[in-house]
Amino acid sequence: MTMSSSSLLIKNIHRIWQYDPHASLGWQAGEEMKQINHLENAWILCESDRIQEIGTMDACPEGHHPILDAKGGDILPSWVDSHTHLVFARTREDEFRYRLEGMSYEEIANKGGGILNSAYRLRETSEEELLEGARKRLDEVIRKGTGAIEIKSGYGLTLESEIKMLRVIRRLRDESTIPIRATLLAAHALPKEFKEDRVGYIRLIVDEILPRVADEGLADYIDTFCEKVFFQPEEMAQILEAGARYGLKGKVHTNQFYSIGGIQTAIAQGALSVDHMEVATDQDIEDLLESNVYPVLLPSAPFFLRDHYPPARQMIDAGLGVVLASDYNPGTSPSGNMPLVIALACTQMRMLPEEAIHAATINGACALEWENELGSIAPGKRANLLLTQPIPSLAYLPYAFGSDWIEKRILNGKEFI
Amino acid sequence: MTMSSSSLLIKNIHRIWQYDPHASLGWQAGEEMKQINHLENAWILCESDRIQEIGTMDACPEGHHPILDAKGGDILPSWVDSHTHLVFARTREDEFRYRLEGMSYEEIANKGGGILNSAYRLRETSEEELLEGARKRLDEVIRKGTGAIEIKSGYGLTLESEIKMLRVIRRLRDESTIPIRATLLAAHALPKEFKEDRVGYIRLIVDEILPRVADEGLADYIDTFCEKVFFQPEEMAQILEAGARYGLKGKVHTNQFYSIGGIQTAIAQGALSVDHMEVATDQDIEDLLESNVYPVLLPSAPFFLRDHYPPARQMIDAGLGVVLASDYNPGTSPSGNMPLVIALACTQMRMLPEEAIHAATINGACALEWENELGSIAPGKRANLLLTQPIPSLAYLPYAFGSDWIEKRILNGKEFI
Repeated sequence: MTMSSSSLLIKNIHRIWQYDPHASLGWQAGEEMKQINHLENAWILCESDRIQEIGTMDACPEGHHPILDAKGGDILPSWVDSHTHLVFARTREDEFRYRLEGMSYEEIANKGGGILNSAYRLRETSEEELLEGARKRLDEVIRKGTGAIEIKSGYGLTLESEIKMLRVIRRLRDESTIPIRATLLAAHALPKEFKEDRVGYIRLIVDEILPRVADEGLADYIDTFCEKVFFQPEEMAQILEAGARYGLKGKVHTNQFYSIGGIQTAIAQGALSVDHMEVATDQDIEDLLESNVYPVLLPSAPFFLRDHYPPARQMIDAGLGVVLASDYNPGTSPSGNMPLVIALACTQMRMLPEEAIHAATINGACALEWENELGSIAPGKRANLLLTQPIPSLAYLPYAFGSDWIEKRILNGKEFI
Repeated sequence: MTMSSSSLLIKNIHRIWQYDPHASLGWQAGEEMKQINHLENAWILCESDRIQEIGTMDACPEGHHPILDAKGGDILPSWVDSHTHLVFARTREDEFRYRLEGMSYEEIANKGGGILNSAYRLRETSEEELLEGARKRLDEVIRKGTGAIEIKSGYGLTLESEIKMLRVIRRLRDESTIPIRATLLAAHALPKEFKEDRVGYIRLIVDEILPRVADEGLADYIDTFCEKVFFQPEEMAQILEAGARYGLKGKVHTNQFYSIGGIQTAIAQGALSVDHMEVATDQDIEDLLESNVYPVLLPSAPFFLRDHYPPARQMIDAGLGVVLASDYNPGTSPSGNMPLVIALACTQMRMLPEEAIHAATINGACALEWENELGSIAPGKRANLLLTQPIPSLAYLPYAFGSDWIEKRILNGKEFI
């Protein structure tokens, strides 16, 4: 067993959850989600940024190398948060107050709220300032256990500003401790300049923004907000088709408020995931069961909006797998706290603890095509892990919804301080 | 201005919330709750454990003394959490799982759940072990900004075990950094030994437990769980009357699941507070308006149980004041996180940020008869404060529901590390 100076031995682990000895774990659906493989009384040896070997304490490696004593805590894979809008110009607590005071959406928009106004603020904010704010938020979510993340554009809504956002995401990726995927969401809302010219804005996306983004290699995926008041399924289809020509798969916002055919269009276009799903009909669920599209649930948004939650129980009982992500954004989910997402999933959507952990780890990894790299604890995978305080069982994690039970974070095989 | 070695100067404070220059702030109700007094660009001088003087940065005291630079953060009074069950033998995440799996209350009780089973576990747990667990939880809630707390007995349900719990609370109080009030809650549930003898158990409380507790000075208040399946209003009346003979005011659990007259009985008995109120009828609210009894709302419990929340909006709009507390307990609210309670109050009960801050500070202090000691930032009051990160406005606090925005805690005029 090689032990270089870049190795780290984590010992005295009570339980390793998502233990995956043959690095074979894939998408978990239906009944599979109820069980999680684990190894008791164990150690993990990391070499460089990888998990090298895993074993039990009766045969723990010896020798001189940095040691992290887990002191009876449990180890889980870091969360893979597959849906965020982490880059933005300003928080929107003023809108939150207006909403509490009973203002309508229109009144709030007139006072400077909504996606469009986030866009106008972002256009006036420099790349450096955007980077600084996003860096702080990224650090915050890493402390809550996130070990891989997706970030979208979509507060630019012009060629220049969408590119600016995606450059910020690229700079974050270049400097960050955790892997990042970038998604082009130019079709987040119709900017005022195109209020009377939907066709013109879609043409701008397809003919100018997308080619430029692809040319600079700034995005991994393409997104569209498919919703009554935003983009229609046929408009989403045009955008996803264009994305496909540049090798960008679809990850789409759909069924947040209405079921208008977004899921069926996403399936037809071979999208990777359909995100939100607060409103999912029986037909939507049946269609998803016949497809390879991953449903991504974002319970922080209905929590914050006091809206209804996605029918997670019905989806899993029907045999679907689901992903949990934070939707971190300044308007409708101002939190990237994944332990709280897991608590919301269990307390509010009646997911079982094992289902929620699958949804936030291996299934999240699948929704970013990182299942060979992240989401389980397997030799060869990236050593992005979290260490808990000693806990009685997995159910304790969502149960202790207000506690900080993460003791340490290990990223790329090193303790993150 | 005297500056002893026991002084602390907090400078560069952006805003002091609950600024109370004449130490005159009292119970806040109705429209009053919408406004919070504040002072901008300020400093606070603490001397020993007290707030000595408050001023603005244009005239900041000089001289040699320990300085805490707030760096543009805001200062609030520490939370006063007036309703907890912080002393218990074991967490109950197993019951949480059973509930998610669809088990009924009876099935869970048979598998070892519920108050009664908490009681049997507690009886087998030593005073030292109880103290150790409670100490950890107390430290945890202090980190979340709690600066004064109430703790109940009620998992003993025998003379010996109720005394044991109250002794643990006394030992906590003797050693703790923050002030603690103790409440005797022998009438939390009917123990199995008295299943067929309600009268006998109430006689035990009134004739044996209460005199002994009073004799040892172990409790400040007396509580009863008034609810269809626990104690009836007339039984609560007997217990409160007995408490009054020993100078213990009532703080009662009522209207969590049904409105059966608990509020009216509490009013008639001159109780200090009625706690829970998930179910409050128009008549209940009218009766409270005519009384001096404080309503205490505990939103973490309906959050965790996915039940309905107390009608906070209706109560405040009718002119009532309300208190927010955590109800930290292992069965129905396994969290003492007051920032999250405030976020739940705003997002789920539509309280305004100012209303929630009043409810968690000065009104909480009133519900523990500590309004002259805590709950606002006034010369002469105990220097229990929390320092936030720089925040754009008060609305940011409930808005950023998943963030840790508390930067530092000051307790008894010293930074709590």
